[in-house]
Amino acid sequence: MSIEAKDALEKIRAYLAAGPTEGLRRFLREVHYADLAETLPELNLAQQIKIIRMCEPSKAAAVLYELDRAEVAALLEGLGEWRAAQILREMSPDDAVDLLGGMQREEQERFLSLMGTSEAEDVQELLEYGPETAGGLMTTECVSVDEGITAGEALEFLRTTAPDAETVYYVYVVNKQNQLVGVVSLRELILSAPSTRVADVMRTEVVSVHVDTDQEEVARVVGKYDFLAVPVVDDEHKLLGIVTVDDVLDVLEEEATEDILRLAHVEYEGRYFGTSVLKRAGKRLPWLVVLLFGGLLAASVIANFSATLSAITALAFFMTVMAGGPGNLATQTLAVVVRGLATGEVSPRGVLTVIMGEVGVAVLVGVVSGLIMAGVAYVWQGEAVFGTIVGVSLASSMIIAAVIGSFVPLIINRFGIDPALASGPFITTLMDVCSMLIYFSLATFFLHRYPM
Amino acid sequence: MSIEAKDALEKIRAYLAAGPTEGLRRFLREVHYADLAETLPELNLAQQIKIIRMCEPSKAAAVLYELDRAEVAALLEGLGEWRAAQILREMSPDDAVDLLGGMQREEQERFLSLMGTSEAEDVQELLEYGPETAGGLMTTECVSVDEGITAGEALEFLRTTAPDAETVYYVYVVNKQNQLVGVVSLRELILSAPSTRVADVMRTEVVSVHVDTDQEEVARVVGKYDFLAVPVVDDEHKLLGIVTVDDVLDVLEEEATEDILRLAHVEYEGRYFGTSVLKRAGKRLPWLVVLLFGGLLAASVIANFSATLSAITALAFFMTVMAGGPGNLATQTLAVVVRGLATGEVSPRGVLTVIMGEVGVAVLVGVVSGLIMAGVAYVWQGEAVFGTIVGVSLASSMIIAAVIGSFVPLIINRFGIDPALASGPFITTLMDVCSMLIYFSLATFFLHRYPM
Repeated sequence: MSIEAKDALEKIRAYLAAGPTEGLRRFLREVHYADLAETLPELNLAQQIKIIRMCEPSKAAAVLYELDRAEVAALLEGLGEWRAAQILREMSPDDAVDLLGGMQREEQERFLSLMGTSEAEDVQELLEYGPETAGGLMTTECVSVDEGITAGEALEFLRTTAPDAETVYYVYVVNKQNQLVGVVSLRELILSAPSTRVADVMRTEVVSVHVDTDQEEVARVVGKYDFLAVPVVDDEHKLLGIVTVDDVLDVLEEEATEDILRLAHVEYEGRYFGTSVLKRAGKRLPWLVVLLFGGLLAASVIANFSATLSAITALAFFMTVMAGGPGNLATQTLAVVVRGLATGEVSPRGVLTVIMGEVGVAVLVGVVSGLIMAGVAYVWQGEAVFGTIVGVSLASSMIIAAVIGSFVPLIINRFGIDPALASGPFITTLMDVCSMLIYFSLATFFLHRYPM
Repeated sequence: MSIEAKDALEKIRAYLAAGPTEGLRRFLREVHYADLAETLPELNLAQQIKIIRMCEPSKAAAVLYELDRAEVAALLEGLGEWRAAQILREMSPDDAVDLLGGMQREEQERFLSLMGTSEAEDVQELLEYGPETAGGLMTTECVSVDEGITAGEALEFLRTTAPDAETVYYVYVVNKQNQLVGVVSLRELILSAPSTRVADVMRTEVVSVHVDTDQEEVARVVGKYDFLAVPVVDDEHKLLGIVTVDDVLDVLEEEATEDILRLAHVEYEGRYFGTSVLKRAGKRLPWLVVLLFGGLLAASVIANFSATLSAITALAFFMTVMAGGPGNLATQTLAVVVRGLATGEVSPRGVLTVIMGEVGVAVLVGVVSGLIMAGVAYVWQGEAVFGTIVGVSLASSMIIAAVIGSFVPLIINRFGIDPALASGPFITTLMDVCSMLIYFSLATFFLHRYPM
């Protein structure tokens, strides 16, 4: 919880304890919705309902949008139909879709029927799009004008209609078929002479995204071109809505969190902290158990070489090094590839270049690491053969780690699966098995030829 | 490289091969600067210089800003003083600072002397702030008006001065001492009657950041309140500049990449792909070598127990499981804590709650994992004592992993060090040593009492 929200929470608790509501009502008018939203989960449902009832509908809508989806359903239920409908109508369609999207079909339909007909239709339409696409992110409330009008007429149009639009900073220009033909910023409109035709000041090279575009790609486009919003079009290039930069910020933060947690083998869906210890354990346990069983594969490899192990006990000393080194290199490779795919530095077209480059890195890094550890093993155990086993198997395992660490996420990505999700546990297990197999095979080979 | 940039590169190569420059010149006017910037690193320096010379100065400035800092220095050098000065003057002060910030002191001063006096002064001033603070991110080009004027006067002021300002979507209102007293959006100004006083429509509760605020905190504030820009003030609440949302997007992407790569033990500074294999190896090798030597600590622990290991060879089979399980749990814990700190879900004040929660999770997860592996070990080796050793040491190592995995980053964060940087290798090494120590101590203890 942020410092501002902590202060807000203290004040709200004091007001709730004090009794009379006038002070609380005044405070709720002043507090920022984002801070208020942070305090609500700390209060019980009755207190939450009391507070939302006291807020103006537009602020209540903004607060509800920030809450966890499960909490919202309970709150809307508790507020009663009339108040819930009033708040839902205040939301922009994309925010309402976001809220309703997580609900059961029947719940969705009940709340939709509470909203006004035209709002409900907008929301219904948006609900059809995938939640992680441009269509799922966009709002239909954007400003578009006909290509035939003047800058002055456009500004007048804004003055009369704008209060409903989520962002008016770009005005999109469409032709008679509602196809996107240009864009002009509010700034350019203001700076133009009122009699100038919009078609003369607009830029005609408009970057837009298709309604089915993945949200990560939408974020990449907005970030790359420094947009405040990007228009969304259908197959016929008709303007459907816009995705605004604040939604892109949310996407970026969500995708980064998702990547980090999945690379660290944590199931990701929404918040982590703030949920119960039992729920958190549920997000952590699945991959840990998978990895433990993966580790058993490596264990069975080692068991197969128990004769070699009994002959050279020192092999066991280096087992953590031999599993750790290539494992860490595979994790490094996976992380740079996954991140490169997310930021667009790695394009799906350049797969071979990436793999070759990463293997090149691994050859350098593997040879250096192998030489160092061979030296250490030789000095420690006083056996040149032992040093050779350690050095050669470490270097070759690390090179294989780079191949696996870059190949697997790139291939998985090509099939449209999130590489951060599937790669981690698979690669970890595969690398453990590979390194142990190489290490003990090499040791067995040398043991038969050059007994120590 | 994105698809749009690939197309641009093909066209540029064709134009360069064709000879006459008119087509290229026309193409350069049309192509988006972000796409052009992506193509440049694929061309040689002479071609780069040729292309930048053909661009209009404002586009050249936008392109240069997108490039790697090292490339920019060479390009500015090659363009000659006159053209370099022209381009630098076109940049907004914060972008110029970003470019010059990475250069040597003498280079900086040479380029500053090429710029106009007033531009150079702005840049000089910004260069004094830390590059990762609000001061280092902000631009001084923002629109502020006196609290006494009307909405109509404010719009007229915008019409006459705005073309230079990076963003005009918020107009900041200041008093006679240049202290920030309010904010009004361009949208609100347009919707107001021209005779309304700005002081009557402005919001007086302005969220601002101090000039020394860390850039991650700035990003958090902009993201939380859905701002297009946030004002930056000094100790006396005087308005110094603004940080715009496009810079915040860059910060978020940079910080997320930094966190991911550092958690995966990769040195982070700027781009990874696009640099040479040798440079990439340099970013990967340091931590790998540190981790190998860390692994040697675990190896020396195991060597100390070689008598126990000789007596029960099966202990070696479970070593990868025993190092991997707690290691993975520590990585999970580290990742959720580091990410929680970055998104603000974990506040530095709530350290104890976080550690207690994570230990709670580890008790659940550890006991389940320990029971599963105890069962497997018992069935496989047919020894209840062996199963007990495996189960108890796995469960206790995992609980310790949660303590270390949450405690270390939180403590490091308290000292103002990036927890993603220092925690990873330290925790990995510490966990390996701990798990091996617990596993073999327990085995030795049982071996003496209940010989297998």
